Amino acid sequence: MSDNKDFVKEITNIDEDFAQWYTDIVRKAELADYTDTKGCIAIRPYGYAIWENIQNYADKKFKETGVQNTYFPVLIPESLLEKEKDHVEGFAPEVAWVTEAGGEKLEEKLCIRPTSETIITTMYAKWLNSWRDLPFVYNQWCSVLRWEKETRPFLRSREFLWQEGHTIHETEKEARERTLQMLNIYKDVAENFLAIPVITGLKTETEKFAGADETYTIEAMTYDGKALQSGTSHYFGQNFTKPFDVKFQNRDGKLEYAYQTSWGISTRLIGAIIMAHGDNRGLKLPPRVAPIQVEVIPIAQHKEGVEEKVSEIYERLKTKFRVEADFRKQVSPGVKFNDCEMRGIPLRLEMGPRDIENGECVLVRRDTSEKISVKLENLEETIEKLLEEIQNNMFEMCKKRMEEKTTEAHTLDEFQEKMNSNQGFIKAMWCGSAECEAIIKELTAAKSRCMPFVQEKIDNKCVCCGKPADKYVIWGRQY
Amino acid sequence: MSDNKDFVKEITNIDEDFAQWYTDIVRKAELADYTDTKGCIAIRPYGYAIWENIQNYADKKFKETGVQNTYFPVLIPESLLEKEKDHVEGFAPEVAWVTEAGGEKLEEKLCIRPTSETIITTMYAKWLNSWRDLPFVYNQWCSVLRWEKETRPFLRSREFLWQEGHTIHETEKEARERTLQMLNIYKDVAENFLAIPVITGLKTETEKFAGADETYTIEAMTYDGKALQSGTSHYFGQNFTKPFDVKFQNRDGKLEYAYQTSWGISTRLIGAIIMAHGDNRGLKLPPRVAPIQVEVIPIAQHKEGVEEKVSEIYERLKTKFRVEADFRKQVSPGVKFNDCEMRGIPLRLEMGPRDIENGECVLVRRDTSEKISVKLENLEETIEKLLEEIQNNMFEMCKKRMEEKTTEAHTLDEFQEKMNSNQGFIKAMWCGSAECEAIIKELTAAKSRCMPFVQEKIDNKCVCCGKPADKYVIWGRQY
Repeated sequence: MSDNKDFVKEITNIDEDFAQWYTDIVRKAELADYTDTKGCIAIRPYGYAIWENIQNYADKKFKETGVQNTYFPVLIPESLLEKEKDHVEGFAPEVAWVTEAGGEKLEEKLCIRPTSETIITTMYAKWLNSWRDLPFVYNQWCSVLRWEKETRPFLRSREFLWQEGHTIHETEKEARERTLQMLNIYKDVAENFLAIPVITGLKTETEKFAGADETYTIEAMTYDGKALQSGTSHYFGQNFTKPFDVKFQNRDGKLEYAYQTSWGISTRLIGAIIMAHGDNRGLKLPPRVAPIQVEVIPIAQHKEGVEEKVSEIYERLKTKFRVEADFRKQVSPGVKFNDCEMRGIPLRLEMGPRDIENGECVLVRRDTSEKISVKLENLEETIEKLLEEIQNNMFEMCKKRMEEKTTEAHTLDEFQEKMNSNQGFIKAMWCGSAECEAIIKELTAAKSRCMPFVQEKIDNKCVCCGKPADKYVIWGRQY
Repeated sequence: MSDNKDFVKEITNIDEDFAQWYTDIVRKAELADYTDTKGCIAIRPYGYAIWENIQNYADKKFKETGVQNTYFPVLIPESLLEKEKDHVEGFAPEVAWVTEAGGEKLEEKLCIRPTSETIITTMYAKWLNSWRDLPFVYNQWCSVLRWEKETRPFLRSREFLWQEGHTIHETEKEARERTLQMLNIYKDVAENFLAIPVITGLKTETEKFAGADETYTIEAMTYDGKALQSGTSHYFGQNFTKPFDVKFQNRDGKLEYAYQTSWGISTRLIGAIIMAHGDNRGLKLPPRVAPIQVEVIPIAQHKEGVEEKVSEIYERLKTKFRVEADFRKQVSPGVKFNDCEMRGIPLRLEMGPRDIENGECVLVRRDTSEKISVKLENLEETIEKLLEEIQNNMFEMCKKRMEEKTTEAHTLDEFQEKMNSNQGFIKAMWCGSAECEAIIKELTAAKSRCMPFVQEKIDNKCVCCGKPADKYVIWGRQY
């Protein structure tokens, strides 16, 4: 931790002003900072290291399913963006336009990609010939730009980092399977890597991606009970391949348009980690994604042999875990403990003269604050076990909260009352009309999150209009 | 290899039209393709896989020296770009400007980064306080945009992928050391990973980076004897830290401006690989960077047991090497051999009924066309040895060519004559004046590449003006 000029001295209480607590964490844990480019952040090394860990985990999972990485231009000509009607309506209002370049006004303006369906589908049309060429299962890790009015670091930044996968297939069936396959990888990333339980399901027509037939989502819950859309996977059918003329000779020798999907996760996941796990002491990172899993802190560092012995332990652990040692002389162990907690490091290792004498050290868990004395000969084994326990415990804590903050509603009054008092997910039946969604949003500020894959029959009538309803929807306020 | 509609049927002869041969390779080996965004390419999976291998190798080397990855905004406000005089003069003419966003005209236009010194230095000013915070050794992997008039895939694309490292230090000495440390990593990437020998040295004032005190470079030579600047590392002194007000309290308690460096390599290296190693049969990849090291091809695939046995070998090799098997039924082994050569795969493994009977297979080297029969029990060992030999041989072949195509000149006439007949590097003395550089360029189309670290005394007078000269310069025509 550097001693920054504009260091946030205190963080806001998480229960008093969650939004302010959030930005305090972002800055005090040195994850990111505001820049002179309004609405865009700089991701600092500690924040970026979290993103790199997410990338490595997800990229490996992608590649196991045959995904290949690529790179397509950041600039998209206006005429391409306009080719698919719903898509341009959805994205045109929030794009940034390049109108001058190389000292001249451009003949056709170019937008900075808000997403790359249009430019990639254009290339697919050039490359596709026969069914034998299919599928194309391409992905790119890049940044995109969406000119949001209100921004929040990681959650809603004008520029953000993401991956966007774009695939085309020979059959509808194969494309639909790919859509769900990628959603399942996202669920795996969220739950098994980030320790964030998610609800998976289908978005309503109102909430789906501009140009998609169907959008599937993983929805997480924040500390304050709001919903956070954390990854989406879209099935396009032939919505883009028709206007972009992506056709192939099929097995019967006939020309056919390909079936398409796209899917993405972004640096928003860093926001999800902060909002799902953090507390009044700062960030709290699940061990699997944590850039530093163990922080080694000497006690009474000035005493003979302490620095030497602690260095030795640090070097030993480095071969097995992601470890950092804090040997700063100008600050007390107390300050180091606070820094370590603020940065959410899962385990703190303290070691002073008495520990050295006894051939042991003390481990302190970030999630429970529990202190454990460990004999040095058992150190690696204990750390490994504890990191596993912390990972699981953090998932269970989030899951418990999500369960506690998920309730049912059978009437609009009940919906309003519960959303206002509890703020969380509400399960309620829906008739399928966009009007009812609009009324609910107007009255409760909650939107439909998704129609979960696992459908329950809460009731047989719509929570809003009372008409017969067989769709069970999860609702929530959103970040 | 897909059967593309606009597949290049033949490649141009390398000795007849090298530039056309180059673009043929780019397209036929499916490394990249032109897009609807003029001057920008799409990097296809095979090309991107090469880039990923370069990234992984370089990123690991960077991190071993303490480099941390970060991400800064793609958009830079005009006022920031203008803060350092030489820098804005150098880059402003070739930037792309965003003037509209979110449906409105912007109050201040934003350029897409051509390089990020300005936006990063601005943030360093916010984050730096004491000498204890230093150094900042940050890097980002991203894309940049430079609106070139003439473009060529990988070599000079309007958008390209690169890494840009930006560091600030407590002392000039430390910053200078970092500049050279990174240049040495680039030399290592080029020589030991890409098998491309490079000349390292200092750029002249005319050729240095806009805003730098000193620019160091690695210069490669192409098949046709041209120079390819393949990586640069800059020492800035306080040129940026003063106008951007990046100061810190030094060890004496006084305020001091930090000392700065930046350094970058890019997807241009893919162009370097093509141009240094390729031949009339296509791309030729050094084994360490090759996405596929061994291509497994069945012979008489329809015969009983062949597919099964070849699959078995493929599965066996997959655990140890990057391997692909070509089981396409609609094309002959001959076509597969050609595809394999075109894509530059270092080793081809052929296996037919007779090989199976004899418990062996045939390995064919891409670099020498040598065929080697190998007993299956020695397969892994032999492949490992051969890949190593190919890597070394490819480096030696390039080195030999560079030596052959490097000559000395003592007069302008000799310089012109040798450059026109031989096109390669010319070693010549230089008095240090920009005028002489300009005259040489005018007469020979060659620019100064660098003043090599290892200085030789070819002569005691400038090759151009004849005045006393103690600087030994390497000159060459460039891509």
